Parts: sequence; C-alpha cells; structure tokens
Amino acid sequence: MEKTLIFDRAEYEARVAAVKNSMAERGLDLLLVSEPPNLYYLTGYDAYSFYTPQLAMVSLERKEPVFITRSMDKVSARMTTYLNEDSVFSYPDSYVNSQTLSAYEYMSGIIREFGGEKATIGVEMGGYYYSARAHADLVKALPKAKFVDADLLVNWIRLVKSPAELVLMRQAGQIGDAALKRAFETAEPGLRECDLAAAVYHQQISGTPEFGGNYDSSALHFGAGQLALAPHPTWTDKPLQAATTIYLEVHGNRRRYQVNVARTIVLGKPSPSYEDFAKIAIEATDLALESVRPGRTCSEVHRTFANALSRHGIEKEGRLGYPTGIGYPPAAAERTASFRKGDDTVLQPGMCFHMMSGLWLEGVSVAVTQPFAVTENGYEQLTKTPRTLLVK
Amino acid sequence: MEKTLIFDRAEYEARVAAVKNSMAERGLDLLLVSEPPNLYYLTGYDAYSFYTPQLAMVSLERKEPVFITRSMDKVSARMTTYLNEDSVFSYPDSYVNSQTLSAYEYMSGIIREFGGEKATIGVEMGGYYYSARAHADLVKALPKAKFVDADLLVNWIRLVKSPAELVLMRQAGQIGDAALKRAFETAEPGLRECDLAAAVYHQQISGTPEFGGNYDSSALHFGAGQLALAPHPTWTDKPLQAATTIYLEVHGNRRRYQVNVARTIVLGKPSPSYEDFAKIAIEATDLALESVRPGRTCSEVHRTFANALSRHGIEKEGRLGYPTGIGYPPAAAERTASFRKGDDTVLQPGMCFHMMSGLWLEGVSVAVTQPFAVTENGYEQLTKTPRTLLVK
Repeated sequence: MEKTLIFDRAEYEARVAAVKNSMAERGLDLLLVSEPPNLYYLTGYDAYSFYTPQLAMVSLERKEPVFITRSMDKVSARMTTYLNEDSVFSYPDSYVNSQTLSAYEYMSGIIREFGGEKATIGVEMGGYYYSARAHADLVKALPKAKFVDADLLVNWIRLVKSPAELVLMRQAGQIGDAALKRAFETAEPGLRECDLAAAVYHQQISGTPEFGGNYDSSALHFGAGQLALAPHPTWTDKPLQAATTIYLEVHGNRRRYQVNVARTIVLGKPSPSYEDFAKIAIEATDLALESVRPGRTCSEVHRTFANALSRHGIEKEGRLGYPTGIGYPPAAAERTASFRKGDDTVLQPGMCFHMMSGLWLEGVSVAVTQPFAVTENGYEQLTKTPRTLLVK
Repeated sequence: MEKTLIFDRAEYEARVAAVKNSMAERGLDLLLVSEPPNLYYLTGYDAYSFYTPQLAMVSLERKEPVFITRSMDKVSARMTTYLNEDSVFSYPDSYVNSQTLSAYEYMSGIIREFGGEKATIGVEMGGYYYSARAHADLVKALPKAKFVDADLLVNWIRLVKSPAELVLMRQAGQIGDAALKRAFETAEPGLRECDLAAAVYHQQISGTPEFGGNYDSSALHFGAGQLALAPHPTWTDKPLQAATTIYLEVHGNRRRYQVNVARTIVLGKPSPSYEDFAKIAIEATDLALESVRPGRTCSEVHRTFANALSRHGIEKEGRLGYPTGIGYPPAAAERTASFRKGDDTVLQPGMCFHMMSGLWLEGVSVAVTQPFAVTENGYEQLTKTPRTLLVK
C-alpha cells in the first residue's frame, strides 16, 4: 500500500520532538491528542473519520506517536500517516455510537500498555473532539493516572508555520482569491443565492489549474440582504435583488491548510454613506496591517485598529482576528492567539492570521478582510484580492 | 427584523413538549442542549456559530427554551428561531477562545437565573459540542446542582420524522440523486479528481431547479484507485485513470435535513469477478430493504443482510446503517439506532436511515447504498438512483 505523505518524515519528527519538549516542561508522561488538526500535524492522518473516537498518544518513552482509530479506518492510517504498522491500533466497530460500550474504555487498555496506568496524562479538555464523556470514561478506566489539561499544547506549537507549511498557506490563499473572483463574476440580480454559493464551492474545491482545493473546515459564510447583518449566515434559495449587499467569507483549503478571506459584494450602486462606512473599515484594516511585525503583540495590533475606528465613533464587538493553518470542521481558527485587548502573544515570523476586520453594526455591515503571514520585517498577504468593496 | 422559520410555531412547540415529557420521566428540572442539530430542532437556530459555546436550556417551568450564544450571533437567534426576545441571551466576545475566561462559567449565571442553582440538570455528555472543559466549568460553577447524563434525549425524539420533516428529507434525497447524476456525467479519464469533486459540490449546493441545497454535515467521501479501499477518503489532484473505481458518498442537504447515498463509479469495463462481488453486495442490500417494516428491529434487518453475505463467505465489519435527519458538522448520523447485532430498536413509520451497505474488504470495495424512510407498510426510497454499479 502506497503512503501519501504531504511532508518529509523529518518534518513530522521535528513536530513530535517539539511536542515532547513541551510535555517534559509541563511534567507530562503521555499526551492524548484528540483534535483532528493536531492528529494531522503530528502523524499526517487524514480521513473524514473524526466523528468517531480517535486518539494519538505521544509518550516521552517512545519515538513515534501511537494512533488509535476505528477498525475500518486503520487503512487510512496506513495510507496517510508516517507511522509504522506497530504504532497503529484500533477498536472494534461495535464501539461506534454504542449505548453500552465505551471506545474510550477500550482505548484505555492500549494506553495502559504504553505505561499509562500511573502516568501523568495530558488531555485536550477544551477540544471539539474530547467530550465530557470521553474524559469521564478515561478517568474511570485509569483511576491511578493523573489527568492534566494540556489543551492547546500542540496548537501553540503549530501557530508558527514551517517553510513547507507556508507554501501550502500561499496556495490556499490563491484558492481563496480564485473563489472571490468566481463569486464576483457569477453574482447577478435574479440568480438564486444557492447557485452563487454553488459556484463558490466549485471553485474552492477545484482550486486553480496548478493545484486542487479541499473541503473547507467551516461552511461558506453567505448572507445577502437582511442576512448580511449576521456574521455567520447561510444562503437561501431566493433570487439576488437588483440592489443588495452580499457578505461572503470564502475558504481556500490546500491539503487541509486553510486561508479565510471575506468581502462584501455590492450589486447596484452603493450609497455615499455606505461607501464612507466601508472606507473607514478599510483604512483601519490597512493601518492594523501596517503595524504587524515580529515583536509586536496581538493587543498592540488590535489597538491600532480600534483607535482608527474610534476616531469615527465605531467599536468592533468581536476580536479582530485569529490564526489559521490546518483546518478540520468545525473551525479554522487555531484557538490560541486573538487580536484583541489583553492578548500579549508576541508575533513571530511564520505565524498566519486572518485579520477579520468585518464590522456588523445595527442595520449595516461590511467585510473587507485580509489573511497574512508574519515575515521577518512585517507581513505577507496570503490573498491578493484588492481590499475594496466588490461593486458590480 | 424578519423571522425566517422553516416550520410552524406549533411544530416547534410540539417538539419542546415531547422533550419536556422525557425530562419529567427522567426527573430532570433543566436540560442543557449543546448539539447543533438539537438546537435547530428545538428552536430553529441556524448559523455557523457552533464552533463557540452555545446552549439551549429547556426548563419544565418555562414555556420556551432559553437560547444562549455569543453576543455577535444574537442577530441570528432573532432571525432564525421562533423564540421571543426575552428568551435569547449572550456572553461577551471576550469569552471566545479566551485563555482565562470561561463562557460556561458566564452561562452558569443565566442558568442560575432560571432555577439552576440546585436543580437536576441534564447534559449531553457524549455530544460533539460539550467538551470535557464545558462540563468541568459548569459543575464547578453550579456546585449544588446535580448533573445527569441526558445524551441523546433529544436525538431519540427526532428519530421519528414528522410529515413536514419528511417533505424535506425527500427533497434532500432528490438533491442526492442530482449529485450522483452529475458525478456520473462528469467523471472521465484524465479529469483531475478535484474537478470531479467540485462538480459534485456544485450540484449539492445548487440543488435542483425547484429548490436549493445546503452545505453538507460531513465532507464528500471520494476515493479513486487505492483510496477507494478506505471508507472515509478525500480526493486528490491526480487525473482519473482510464480504468479505475471511484467510491463516492454524496450528501443531499435541504434546509439542514441530510440524506447520504453512496455509489461506486467504474471507469472502463469491470472484471467479471468484480461484477460478481458487486452483485452479492447489491442482493444483500435488496434483501435487507425488503425486510424493513414497522415492528421489525434494527438487528433483524441486519441479520437478513449478514446472512445474505455469509452465504458467500463475506462479513461486513461496520454497522449496516444509521439514522439521518438534521445534520451539522461533523456528522449526519443521529448517534441513536444502528443496524447491527444487538440493536433492538423497533422500526416505526417516519424513521429515516442510510442503509450503508458498502463493503471494504482486503484489496476490494464496493458501495451501492440506499437511504430510506420507514412507512406504514415497509419503506420508501429517499433516492431513486438505481442500485447498480455506475459503469462508464
């Protein structure tokens, strides 16, 4: 069976080594990794099987992580991970959605084999794929182990992208640009919203002539008319009006690396007051971007943006941005740093963010956002679509 | 602001009443609902905001559920739920992905306002959106309350679809048929896998000329060549070979109601031995379908299928099927009944399933599956694509 690795084995080994360093600093013997992006980061595992229990276990005592999945998905572990056969384990299918059997109880037996009986074990308490029951079942099955919250341990490490990862992020950005271009070209009065959304999905998945896209880790955000006033809306079947605004957040995803970018498309002539409002949002975004450089903190970048808005009496309720990289449903954001007051994360080259500078105020919204990577001297735009309203 | 309800208010009220009955039987004062499909079922709430904490609280003492979300998403609650303004609450944006603040601790204050201080509170311990930390934070914030696992309480109720829901399931099935048709028409040697996947997505979202589609609750499953040997694969950028098999599970999603259906597309002439293998799988599926009727159990249907296969010395590792209905990422399956040994769920009219009769054996796979609704006398196919290999 042919392995389909995205990165060199050395890159996976370096990632695992970084995780072990962090584990040692925190006094962890074992780390149980449940988040799909972290599984992908540490082992290469890629299949849409995370809706059933899966764990990678990193042990300070063992070179490779151990990967545990549903029996039918072992074949995907063999194909997509860099791991040797003796690092891949599985639980029987009868444990899937069972009302009586616990996959986590089953997995505790494997954890015990690798020294988990009395170990200090890190778990991702705040993860999307580590449920209250997963934790309760593991704690019950390993009563002598000490469980420690190690949520985001891997996320903080993958916040800084390697050169090989940045190549994929740039490609994801190109797919994002292609999706926005397709949206702009396709949008027209009378077209059903679902048909415009379909065209955007087509482009996201098809990608570019040079490289393909992948499924995004959150649905396309699409709101026309009244729905543009919501930050996370979905399209309807209605035809687009002759004069309307359409809020779109599209997602370029290249080999699971995701870049988010949002624009407001305006059909018809925008009013002067709306143009002024957009101008304020764009200028604040530009200023915040120009403030990005290594050594700055997330809160400093946020302050630049907030000050630019407050000169016009505007306040943005949500955070200004979040990091992206490997994305699996339900989210692209890495859950670590945020551009907002009080976040003292220091920017470093290789970090990638979506500056989500969209504004949703009472009765009006605009979104002209910018994904970027932090460079040695400043920032690099991951998408090249001009930061303007897309007026048609 | 215009409300965009999918069902009559009376239908939501009946659902909430059924949940309250079940709560009373179990001795629950409050139920905290975290699963997005359950939120949609009970309130109508629809926005891609479930990657941050959200809860609906059903109280035996209060007519309507209380809905709690992130501040910026209140606008979506106003637009998409049947709830009155005084039933919608939110937490500040500073609680999103915070390293220091807990949204669940904040929400505990609202829960206390509605009598949660010393209540018996049901929570969805095994849900995708009730993390180990969510539970720990709530338990800590409400030390005098008694927490009880009420996972699947709502799921079991929504297993039986109403007439209005069945209308949407049939439409979802039509979108599934359209997606398979588009895949078959588009597939050809030399086409990049991503371009075929893109065409399928386009059709899934565009839907039919009569009604549009929505984003699916799990990614398209797409495996060509070697990847067809995995049950949950994703496409690559490679061109399709002149002679190959392509495994596809497509998803028709109509207003969040999802129908899954899978087919193997064969490019080139299948070998006689492969045709024989497919014939066995299809015959077993046909027999299992013919055994479906109210009063039968899931395990009886499974036995019919398993016996048909075992006559040919074949065993299917995974369960034979699962219920679908409202779907949000990461899964369409409702996590309740399964067609497998030991599952004594009794079939009732209105239940909808995906008979996932795909076989993945060593070195060979085939998938010719059938979504259906249980009727008064038997079953109704939710998709009409013939149960054959799609040979081109």
